[in-house]
Amino acid sequence: MDVVTFGEAMVRLTPPGFQRLEQARSFDVTVGGAELNVAVAARRLGLDTKWLSRLPDNPLGRMIANRAREQGVDVSAVAWAKGERAGVYFAELGAAPRASTVLYDRAYSAISHITPGTIDWKAAFDGARWFHTSGITPALSDSAAKTTVEALVAAKKAGLTVSYDLNFRSKLWDAARARAVQEPLMEHVDVLITTEEDARVVFGVGSGRSAADYSTVDAESYADVARELQKRFDFAAVAITLRENPRVWQNTWSALVVADGELHHAPRYDVEVVDRIGAGDAFSAGLIFGRLECRDWKKAVEYGTALSALKHTVPGDFSQATLGEVEQVINGSSLRVSR
Amino acid sequence: MDVVTFGEAMVRLTPPGFQRLEQARSFDVTVGGAELNVAVAARRLGLDTKWLSRLPDNPLGRMIANRAREQGVDVSAVAWAKGERAGVYFAELGAAPRASTVLYDRAYSAISHITPGTIDWKAAFDGARWFHTSGITPALSDSAAKTTVEALVAAKKAGLTVSYDLNFRSKLWDAARARAVQEPLMEHVDVLITTEEDARVVFGVGSGRSAADYSTVDAESYADVARELQKRFDFAAVAITLRENPRVWQNTWSALVVADGELHHAPRYDVEVVDRIGAGDAFSAGLIFGRLECRDWKKAVEYGTALSALKHTVPGDFSQATLGEVEQVINGSSLRVSR
Amino acid sequence: MDVVTFGEAMVRLTPPGFQRLEQARSFDVTVGGAELNVAVAARRLGLDTKWLSRLPDNPLGRMIANRAREQGVDVSAVAWAKGERAGVYFAELGAAPRASTVLYDRAYSAISHITPGTIDWKAAFDGARWFHTSGITPALSDSAAKTTVEALVAAKKAGLTVSYDLNFRSKLWDAARARAVQEPLMEHVDVLITTEEDARVVFGVGSGRSAADYSTVDAESYADVARELQKRFDFAAVAITLRENPRVWQNTWSALVVADGELHHAPRYDVEVVDRIGAGDAFSAGLIFGRLECRDWKKAVEYGTALSALKHTVPGDFSQATLGEVEQVINGSSLRVSR
Amino acid sequence: MDVVTFGEAMVRLTPPGFQRLEQARSFDVTVGGAELNVAVAARRLGLDTKWLSRLPDNPLGRMIANRAREQGVDVSAVAWAKGERAGVYFAELGAAPRASTVLYDRAYSAISHITPGTIDWKAAFDGARWFHTSGITPALSDSAAKTTVEALVAAKKAGLTVSYDLNFRSKLWDAARARAVQEPLMEHVDVLITTEEDARVVFGVGSGRSAADYSTVDAESYADVARELQKRFDFAAVAITLRENPRVWQNTWSALVVADGELHHAPRYDVEVVDRIGAGDAFSAGLIFGRLECRDWKKAVEYGTALSALKHTVPGDFSQATLGEVEQVINGSSLRVSR
Amino acid sequence: MDVVTFGEAMVRLTPPGFQRLEQARSFDVTVGGAELNVAVAARRLGLDTKWLSRLPDNPLGRMIANRAREQGVDVSAVAWAKGERAGVYFAELGAAPRASTVLYDRAYSAISHITPGTIDWKAAFDGARWFHTSGITPALSDSAAKTTVEALVAAKKAGLTVSYDLNFRSKLWDAARARAVQEPLMEHVDVLITTEEDARVVFGVGSGRSAADYSTVDAESYADVARELQKRFDFAAVAITLRENPRVWQNTWSALVVADGELHHAPRYDVEVVDRIGAGDAFSAGLIFGRLECRDWKKAVEYGTALSALKHTVPGDFSQATLGEVEQVINGSSLRVSR
Amino acid sequence: MDVVTFGEAMVRLTPPGFQRLEQARSFDVTVGGAELNVAVAARRLGLDTKWLSRLPDNPLGRMIANRAREQGVDVSAVAWAKGERAGVYFAELGAAPRASTVLYDRAYSAISHITPGTIDWKAAFDGARWFHTSGITPALSDSAAKTTVEALVAAKKAGLTVSYDLNFRSKLWDAARARAVQEPLMEHVDVLITTEEDARVVFGVGSGRSAADYSTVDAESYADVARELQKRFDFAAVAITLRENPRVWQNTWSALVVADGELHHAPRYDVEVVDRIGAGDAFSAGLIFGRLECRDWKKAVEYGTALSALKHTVPGDFSQATLGEVEQVINGSSLRVSR
Repeated sequence: MDVVTFGEAMVRLTPPGFQRLEQARSFDVTVGGAELNVAVAARRLGLDTKWLSRLPDNPLGRMIANRAREQGVDVSAVAWAKGERAGVYFAELGAAPRASTVLYDRAYSAISHITPGTIDWKAAFDGARWFHTSGITPALSDSAAKTTVEALVAAKKAGLTVSYDLNFRSKLWDAARARAVQEPLMEHVDVLITTEEDARVVFGVGSGRSAADYSTVDAESYADVARELQKRFDFAAVAITLRENPRVWQNTWSALVVADGELHHAPRYDVEVVDRIGAGDAFSAGLIFGRLECRDWKKAVEYGTALSALKHTVPGDFSQATLGEVEQVINGSSLRVSR
Repeated sequence: MDVVTFGEAMVRLTPPGFQRLEQARSFDVTVGGAELNVAVAARRLGLDTKWLSRLPDNPLGRMIANRAREQGVDVSAVAWAKGERAGVYFAELGAAPRASTVLYDRAYSAISHITPGTIDWKAAFDGARWFHTSGITPALSDSAAKTTVEALVAAKKAGLTVSYDLNFRSKLWDAARARAVQEPLMEHVDVLITTEEDARVVFGVGSGRSAADYSTVDAESYADVARELQKRFDFAAVAITLRENPRVWQNTWSALVVADGELHHAPRYDVEVVDRIGAGDAFSAGLIFGRLECRDWKKAVEYGTALSALKHTVPGDFSQATLGEVEQVINGSSLRVSR
Repeated sequence: MDVVTFGEAMVRLTPPGFQRLEQARSFDVTVGGAELNVAVAARRLGLDTKWLSRLPDNPLGRMIANRAREQGVDVSAVAWAKGERAGVYFAELGAAPRASTVLYDRAYSAISHITPGTIDWKAAFDGARWFHTSGITPALSDSAAKTTVEALVAAKKAGLTVSYDLNFRSKLWDAARARAVQEPLMEHVDVLITTEEDARVVFGVGSGRSAADYSTVDAESYADVARELQKRFDFAAVAITLRENPRVWQNTWSALVVADGELHHAPRYDVEVVDRIGAGDAFSAGLIFGRLECRDWKKAVEYGTALSALKHTVPGDFSQATLGEVEQVINGSSLRVSR
Repeated sequence: MDVVTFGEAMVRLTPPGFQRLEQARSFDVTVGGAELNVAVAARRLGLDTKWLSRLPDNPLGRMIANRAREQGVDVSAVAWAKGERAGVYFAELGAAPRASTVLYDRAYSAISHITPGTIDWKAAFDGARWFHTSGITPALSDSAAKTTVEALVAAKKAGLTVSYDLNFRSKLWDAARARAVQEPLMEHVDVLITTEEDARVVFGVGSGRSAADYSTVDAESYADVARELQKRFDFAAVAITLRENPRVWQNTWSALVVADGELHHAPRYDVEVVDRIGAGDAFSAGLIFGRLECRDWKKAVEYGTALSALKHTVPGDFSQATLGEVEQVINGSSLRVSR
Repeated sequence: MDVVTFGEAMVRLTPPGFQRLEQARSFDVTVGGAELNVAVAARRLGLDTKWLSRLPDNPLGRMIANRAREQGVDVSAVAWAKGERAGVYFAELGAAPRASTVLYDRAYSAISHITPGTIDWKAAFDGARWFHTSGITPALSDSAAKTTVEALVAAKKAGLTVSYDLNFRSKLWDAARARAVQEPLMEHVDVLITTEEDARVVFGVGSGRSAADYSTVDAESYADVARELQKRFDFAAVAITLRENPRVWQNTWSALVVADGELHHAPRYDVEVVDRIGAGDAFSAGLIFGRLECRDWKKAVEYGTALSALKHTVPGDFSQATLGEVEQVINGSSLRVSR
Repeated sequence: MDVVTFGEAMVRLTPPGFQRLEQARSFDVTVGGAELNVAVAARRLGLDTKWLSRLPDNPLGRMIANRAREQGVDVSAVAWAKGERAGVYFAELGAAPRASTVLYDRAYSAISHITPGTIDWKAAFDGARWFHTSGITPALSDSAAKTTVEALVAAKKAGLTVSYDLNFRSKLWDAARARAVQEPLMEHVDVLITTEEDARVVFGVGSGRSAADYSTVDAESYADVARELQKRFDFAAVAITLRENPRVWQNTWSALVVADGELHHAPRYDVEVVDRIGAGDAFSAGLIFGRLECRDWKKAVEYGTALSALKHTVPGDFSQATLGEVEQVINGSSLRVSR
């Protein structure tokens, strides 16, 4: 096992054709959740990945596990719960000036009722090299937050590298609580992945720019944020993704990583956006892949950014890219029809 | 206002083409719930109807209200709740020997948090003639059960005729609790609508036949059940629907009513089943219509049965029939293409 | 050219999944119309067929011609009209006790404005052997009725065998007008195709049974009707199709022909009904094929009935059967999966 | 009642996925029409709205009324017609260099047969504050034009503010007739809403630029057009919408209003276009909302423009935006995923 | 590992809504193939299953493996081939009198090029208890036939129980070749699964009834066929499935097994047929499950028949049933909606 | 007959909504192939066109012929093959930075087995004016290459103008073989159509730019390539299409032709790309149309480019444009909604 991740995955319901939820007469049904998305994206690059969670023993819980397994992710250590519910989320895909939006219906889900002791972390981490989770998991409930602590401690104890995507979700908790819960977690984290905006909102790091300012990005100020975070929490590495949103259907996408005293920039990609949900998770997966397989932070940020750019081009939370496709993007592929 | 109903309506998600939930890559999205279904079906026959409920102030709650309004139902007295969730249910349509089945995801819904005092019953019942609710509403939560009592008392006080569909749902509560909660409610009820099976399970009335025995029906024993219920609870009328299930796609459907010392049988219809969910509610609507408009229990059971037979033939919980179509069925219409 | 037909074809809009029109959020789009259906079904058996009509020179008119051409029908003699509209019809597929139904939106269509002289019948019939039209064409408008007379006269003059499907449509005209307009046409007709019901309604021939009686059929009384029609109008042959409608999804289907002093019965088929619209037209096509290619009325009624039975099993107005498939049905094929 | 509108709504059939009509094997079914679109969009912002029209009493007519009601619009004063047809229109969504296009099939529709006296304007306007109609209504037929006069006179008499969207449709009438019919109407109009192009074509006001010139807009010349119109017809206000079409999928969109001797510009929005049909109507609705609720023409043009920008992002004629969403756009919202 | 199967799986393309292939504008995409179907159906009952095959290393090959993995089947020992093609098959779902049919496009598929030595049977069978293949595998090509021999020999050598479904496919080979190739294989087989028809066609065993005779079945004659096969090839057990086809949408389905000198009949089920492809494979899976887990041939044939009956009710080749659902059917479940 | 083309057409399967093949649960089914695409596009402009090929006599082969006929193309001279397979291809539509891609499953198709003598060229070319084929046809197989020679020789002998689209497909053959096979063919060709990239790869003509360089184009260097090709092979004309790919969804598109010692540039179009497959073929069709009907190479390249620009805007291989629409684009049409 190369990589273990822990968190919630949900049934995702998306109205087709840019419809609003109120209009919908059908939903496309996919499955997604930050940490499962990472496990899937990494698996598709060739890493062995395992996803830990708690699912209801009903058709929706099984659907979630099936779809993970379809992508090659090991779900054998998922905890199954009788009579509980699966998290569900509804995604509206936008068009400028209407942003995409998400309606969560994940309260009371099976994993929100997880408690320390549910998962045998020692067994789960046996032989593994890397552990990844995100700021969504402790946001789910108090007991989920406690279980996240348990997981992080166990991972460090088992000698794994630990990455943590800050992933602030204002619909799950507020900034104050996010900070109070997560600051103590940071001591167990080796690699922090975040956006500048989340770093500012949660940890008060970085410039005071407002949300509307993020239509263009200033890579230099971002590097400062990364350095500041690294210093404050003593991370081995900090990665920051950089998105420009001139439109909903067209973004630019890049990232940087600060590690070992060095700053590595990935190229900036123009992306046509089919579905950007899960793009950050694909970045994490590429970063982990590059670090684990190439032992090189520069490659890591390049793999992360290219994989993430590709994720924008497919519907659903999951990356569909192969390693070969990622490397083609890194090497500057043509946009002509391949035939 | 002719008819007021009270209860939960949910977003209903149905995999197309007889798929199981686990297989689904899309869901058809409709809206339904027993008491709203009654309001819709009655509205389509020409009655003015109002539906009372509690909905979350989010796109799903609005979708539910919109779809009720689309059918002409008055939703102006619905209570709106911030930050809560809408009930959802998943329906799998079966084929022999696989029965259709329902997965409820309605726990913690906005209406389950309703409390007495939420709805201004006096205003809601002003000028109305009939009130209808069902055994699903008190099954939702303790506070919903208390609010149901409040509604029934207020309806009687306002001089409305009260009908109550027993609608036992084993996935919401067990028989013992269903009996304990509902026996005290019966004193406020004028018209009880039930199946023989529900009457037996909840009130211990009728034969001891097992579920599998219901592939054929014995109308005479059903009449005895109706009479026994009437006697025990002093109902003005008891209606029992009779379904034979030789197959999932083909049923026979009939009903009887015992009232004013008389027994009225409806004809038995062969129905080809597109979607039988909501058929019982259409029966209630037809029964109410017949009683209110014709003041005749025989007509009532005929309207109820014919409308219900038609409901089986359309997808979704809602009746789509017009009064003219119901009367065509009662009068023995041809099955040739009308052109 | 073997067979020429003349009449209207429309864009047909069908809500999927047994929805009522009011519910529909999408329509399946096909093309159909009695006489085009005959041309298509006959073409698929191997006859050269040409369809005559008048279509608007807009995308809908072109769609109708394209779909005819897709099936191999010659549309080179269709008259094109600027600025007019295409006929449209909406089809609701039913389930017992709800019959399938059709909503016509064909008034003011391009062909309803056809006038004698529009079509060069002499050229159109050049080299042809058979002409077919139906009672729908003269029902479209006065000028269409006049043009039908012109067509029939020209066809007889050109030496073609003329078949005429009575096809009474109560939504287009009433029985009295249907009779007044069509009785004078019958002198030009060699082969009349009808149901017992249409013969009774239009020509007052046959028993006085009501529509509801047609759930079972009595072949003997049908033969009498055929003989009476033949005698009254001096037809070379009369074919009557026999449908039993115990359900909407399951019918029995047969036919008989009276010709040359003999009565020929086709076998009775159990048909599972996907879409019965166009089944009568497929019968006509099979009858024409059998008569033209085998010169045998017994074969004709067998081909007609088998082809028509197959038509019930596919969506849309058009037959999709090949000659080989028809002959398999005649020879008693298995219902096992062919693999 | 805040706002009353009068005009035709149709069943709209749209091939999915940028297909041409000829290619379509299915149509998406929505409902739309300029004045109903205004009533819907205004209702969603919180105004009470009523729509007046004439509909056929068949499933399509009912579908139109249902969809209006779904959005909360009062349809109780619609006139119902037996045996007539509903207007239908087909919409092809384009991509550069292919413009979107519309095929009307609305001739002979129920409302084209409306005559003065059909609608009880006094009752319809009772308690209302604003009346809106557009240049489409008088274009439908002579009798519809006469009924429009009747409506405008009645509205002024009842003391309503009257807005009129010039909405020139070259597929319904030519410029000469549009001018002859509409010039006399203008004396009843308080607020004119138009594009520069329509003003020029119908009233000969403004520059002589050709259609192709509208890929970029010159706001100053537009203001002159507005002022000229105001002067000529003595309008209280003139609003002009400004669209740049560098592509079909990407436009800029803005507007201005001249009123009370002042000129108010709205911001210019970059819009990604899912479906621009109905965007002008959403502008009218926002303008009416802003004027009625804020009594401020600057706010009016801002609400109109922002609501209209949002309309571009959803399929179908109807606005789906809430007041909160409009205000978010006005206040400069982010394009990041809201979660 | 409990069960290992070996054979081809294909991408299956099915036109929706009973369309013929020629009509199709879209295909539903599933995956299936006899031996994979067995592995899936058995896995869903709780057995550990592995599927052996050869797939092209392209998106279609990966899709096939993904879908197997989604169902929990181990695909780690599949052989991957560069630059080859995946087998594809097109399925037309019928309606009486049109049988369902299959168009194979599997020639030249990756597995047809498999050669002995490709698969490491020793490793594949390590720790396994049962091996299953069918008469389709040797029909694919000469080298596939040789590899089948290799597999059977290896399985016996590894001590596995071997089951073999005769599965004659007339579209792949003729009866003479089927007999010549398969007779020598039978010595390695413990359990033969077949229909009476296939036994007669391939091995000349049983009555001389024609295909059309199979609309009703005579269980007694079937038992004789089973006994004759057992005697001739010295099988431990022979199972024969019995289908009656009065219609395409409604069949009866049963089976018997002869083993240990005893004859065990399963009940006869009425099945409503959504999709019968794969039903025979579900039977094999249930039979294997019952034999392996209960060590009882009577239970085996009961599990096989009930699981198979359930398979008829879902679209696609794969069983979707759980063990609990199978046992409900065996115990005589109701056809009422479960709620 | 104006134009005859020769080559393969395939069933094209496209996952909807930018899905990858692996994700697909449905495929859109269209038909396409370079030379058929040319015949269709030219037919829609008004030319009489005939397509020559070899198809399997099964539902897929018939589907291909039907769809050609639907567009008005004459398929009467197609050779039909028993028991062979139809070519199939899978198309993934991309989004930057993921290029669209094609998975061919066309090996062993019926036309790959074509041999000289299969088609009666003399009859096929009788009365025709132009012959078109492309570099795909000789790439299919050795015998297809030989038959291509036969066709070219026969076309020249019959006095037709011959155009040849180089259409290099790296998934069918490599550059060396493409050159070896095609250089000898060029002596029969009057008009070569190519991209600069294909000319360089196959004939080594032009600059040494890499694939990635083609995001911008330099028209001047292209003209040099055209002149060099013309000189080397003595073509009457060489046309080169110029595409810039700044994105997948947005391209610029232009072309030039060198003929009669002159260089003609078409305008450069901004195109929003729904589906660019077949755009090159539409260019060929427009070029042929312009040359045949206007006898003017400048018009030819203008028609070709405008028709091709329009092709980008519709799904499927086939052009859907009419002559009127092409001329509107040439004359600089507006992008406003046409209504």
